[in-house]
Amino acid sequence: MPNAALFTALLRLGDDRLVLGHRNSEWCGHGPILEEDIALANMALDLVGQATLLLQYAGTVEGAGRDQDALAYLRDALEYRNALLCELPKGDFGVTIVRQFFFGVYSVLQWEALAKSTDETLAGIAAKSLKEARYHVRHAGEWVIRLGDGTAESHRRAQAAVDALWPYTGELFMQPADEAELVAAGLTVDVSLLEAPWRAQVDDVLRRATLRAPDAGWMQRGGREGRHTEHLGHMLAEMQIVARSHPGASW
Amino acid sequence: MPNAALFTALLRLGDDRLVLGHRNSEWCGHGPILEEDIALANMALDLVGQATLLLQYAGTVEGAGRDQDALAYLRDALEYRNALLCELPKGDFGVTIVRQFFFGVYSVLQWEALAKSTDETLAGIAAKSLKEARYHVRHAGEWVIRLGDGTAESHRRAQAAVDALWPYTGELFMQPADEAELVAAGLTVDVSLLEAPWRAQVDDVLRRATLRAPDAGWMQRGGREGRHTEHLGHMLAEMQIVARSHPGASW
Repeated sequence: MPNAALFTALLRLGDDRLVLGHRNSEWCGHGPILEEDIALANMALDLVGQATLLLQYAGTVEGAGRDQDALAYLRDALEYRNALLCELPKGDFGVTIVRQFFFGVYSVLQWEALAKSTDETLAGIAAKSLKEARYHVRHAGEWVIRLGDGTAESHRRAQAAVDALWPYTGELFMQPADEAELVAAGLTVDVSLLEAPWRAQVDDVLRRATLRAPDAGWMQRGGREGRHTEHLGHMLAEMQIVARSHPGASW
Repeated sequence: MPNAALFTALLRLGDDRLVLGHRNSEWCGHGPILEEDIALANMALDLVGQATLLLQYAGTVEGAGRDQDALAYLRDALEYRNALLCELPKGDFGVTIVRQFFFGVYSVLQWEALAKSTDETLAGIAAKSLKEARYHVRHAGEWVIRLGDGTAESHRRAQAAVDALWPYTGELFMQPADEAELVAAGLTVDVSLLEAPWRAQVDDVLRRATLRAPDAGWMQRGGREGRHTEHLGHMLAEMQIVARSHPGASW
């Protein structure tokens, strides 16, 4: 089996969640309501926990002695493989919630498919993560409806978030060419197949939220191949500083 | 029953946890190891969750229409009743862990006593929180031993943390005079009774960590009466900015 391809596929899965989890954790202690502060932090923890499992497995597959911490803290932005959607700044609460919803729907579809992976380790991670992702979608979806169908101000902000994030959703469904063998062997899923069901679920919630999806247009891309926005570099600098200033230390 | 005294007693319990939880959450995404990042954030969430229950109940007891969010986000430092120990900056990992251990041992003793409170609501909160607090002590205590009995550098830092935090531990056991009626009625616990068992447990762990408690000396105080260090004001400014800039909004 092509280990290099599986390693990269695991980075794509893990980095999406590590980066988005870190973005959501920036709300820690800054939420507008105690209960929501806790909910956002819990979702962030779920995502970082999933990333830990994925990067741990990636390290095993790579076989170069890098563990999940080395992969999280000692890679530069160029080596990250997350979709650009996950690295954008957290924005206001509307941006955070709409992104969590967009990514969450994608993630549930992805985990559902990966739970049937012929790779048992990946299937196990998927089965565990699926429950968490379903909760994230339910929670974020309810908020999207509450914001969209709320006050004039919350509607305006939620629609602005949808418009700003939309051009970053296309990359989620661009199937990387280097995963062809993995897909053929049933290890990973062809993400282009997830776009139609994703769109149907998203449209349903947007309609109930009295929000609208923008017309089709240019889609941003690059993260899956390591071409990132400047935002990822800034985020990693902050995330990695403690680990990098104490190399090899236990704290 | 003296509602004003119970309200203040609940603030003391809730503010300790809200402030310490917020301090610990400052590690979100900045920990040295993914696993520990998750553990610290989980403990922070437990503490903020306990604070939410306590402040919610405090709002009911006060009867002035303030809910847990109003109490968390719309009080100035002067109105906060946490012990100074909880508001000190997070410091390095050693400071965070030693403080979590010191407070955790105290908290377990407090919840054990409060689980028998004649106030059923408070007894219920205590029973739920006790399990969490026991986990915090186990986790932090293991780290104290690992750091103290680790490398020369980790030992030095852990001892420095013990020395720096020690003068703030005395306040935990200074029983506020205004709680006398509550203690007599079995609603709250006389915290001065907790000092001996606290010290025994702390000494045991410090010994195993090859660390030593400083000699008795001057103990800092003030938080229980609203006299705080400058650090609390800075922390609250950051914690409250989102809620205060959107007064009455749902986000």
